[in-house]
Amino acid sequence: MARQIIYDDPIFFDGYMKIREKEDNANDLFEIPALLTLLPDLSGKSLLDLGCGYGEHCKMFINNGAANVVGVDISEKMLEVAHRANSDPKITYLNIPIEDIDKLEEQFDVVVSSLAIHYVESFAEVVKKIYDKMNTGGVFVFSQEHPIATAYSSGNRWTKDENGKKLYFNLSNYCVEGERELTWFVNGVKKYHRTFSTIVNTLVEVGFTIERMIEPFPDAEMLKKHPQYDDLLHKPDFLLVKAKKM
Amino acid sequence: MARQIIYDDPIFFDGYMKIREKEDNANDLFEIPALLTLLPDLSGKSLLDLGCGYGEHCKMFINNGAANVVGVDISEKMLEVAHRANSDPKITYLNIPIEDIDKLEEQFDVVVSSLAIHYVESFAEVVKKIYDKMNTGGVFVFSQEHPIATAYSSGNRWTKDENGKKLYFNLSNYCVEGERELTWFVNGVKKYHRTFSTIVNTLVEVGFTIERMIEPFPDAEMLKKHPQYDDLLHKPDFLLVKAKKM
Repeated sequence: MARQIIYDDPIFFDGYMKIREKEDNANDLFEIPALLTLLPDLSGKSLLDLGCGYGEHCKMFINNGAANVVGVDISEKMLEVAHRANSDPKITYLNIPIEDIDKLEEQFDVVVSSLAIHYVESFAEVVKKIYDKMNTGGVFVFSQEHPIATAYSSGNRWTKDENGKKLYFNLSNYCVEGERELTWFVNGVKKYHRTFSTIVNTLVEVGFTIERMIEPFPDAEMLKKHPQYDDLLHKPDFLLVKAKKM
Repeated sequence: MARQIIYDDPIFFDGYMKIREKEDNANDLFEIPALLTLLPDLSGKSLLDLGCGYGEHCKMFINNGAANVVGVDISEKMLEVAHRANSDPKITYLNIPIEDIDKLEEQFDVVVSSLAIHYVESFAEVVKKIYDKMNTGGVFVFSQEHPIATAYSSGNRWTKDENGKKLYFNLSNYCVEGERELTWFVNGVKKYHRTFSTIVNTLVEVGFTIERMIEPFPDAEMLKKHPQYDDLLHKPDFLLVKAKKM
């Protein structure tokens, strides 16, 4: 299985950093706030951050009382930024793919992953490895691109009216799981589409209990400030899951 | 709250009975087989069937060893057929809305509902009533129209090519929950759209554990026999849920 390191591609890296720097990016407005509501009290907890990127969450977890954080990411370039901008004696950054966490020696109270899981081909295997790395009573909180969004395979994503207003999300191949190759800053970015039920069943089958799910969308107040996100009412961008190891 | 008795409308009733009589109807090919795989061993169990219609499932549950079945349906006309075609000393048919099951005296081991829940406006209330009517260790298995399908509110459901082949399901208003009024045999049929996460969270919040979900779609063999169902690969018609009272 080829594990992609697109975040090390300089064009991808620059493009990604630019959208994340924008004040009204969808991650900061919708994904991160939802992720935070799903996290338990972190005081004294040991955390594992899968696909930690440039480490902003790892640093935040320490600031919120976590005892220690291990951040893993496949991208050396992202971890360089993490070391520079978000280092802490209680944080260990490891340049390994998510698929290799079974090689870690520690067990964790909380496993977090922000928008990385849809890059993982072998979801069932990785979920099993996460479960095995967790202490009893621990929680696994992750966000990913929404299954309605990852379903898409080709053609136009939206049907628009003559003024460019989005009328419909053109949903296709929702039930056809697997690889989706797309262009996002660069060609050949690979994501993996899984249905809602596959996500739920995979978690349940290894032993997790589903505690909560969120499909974030803007309320009226948010829409007044950021009207460009009204398309999220038709099709959410993100799915967030909180699962517990009982 | 108005509870609709569309199944008592003679035009609706005739239209509905006709599609269910067709050998290749989607209920028989996809929904019922999926529902059956979610049911536990029924031997000696007490069952409640919510929206039992003409009682075919109630009769099947008894044939599969259930100790007794209570079937409730809001439609008198449907229950007339049930009494005629699917009566049994172990089955009790009650002409009450699903919303009134808190008035029943019995507790149940298994609660089943086939394609009725999307007619229920007050999902959270009804789920609470179901939970309260169940014995510990009992399971609640239900099917409903898929949230992607119920999201739809107006306009064309599909974008087709020049030969009439369905290219995309025109998804809109997925995040806008609530009433959907549509024409299905008759005007003014009301269904209630809820997102995937609302369904999951509502069940979890009253105490249920999610055990399994199914979004049925045809495999290659099924498509060879019934090629007209290839649109289910783009958009599943049904969602099925198995939840347990621990």
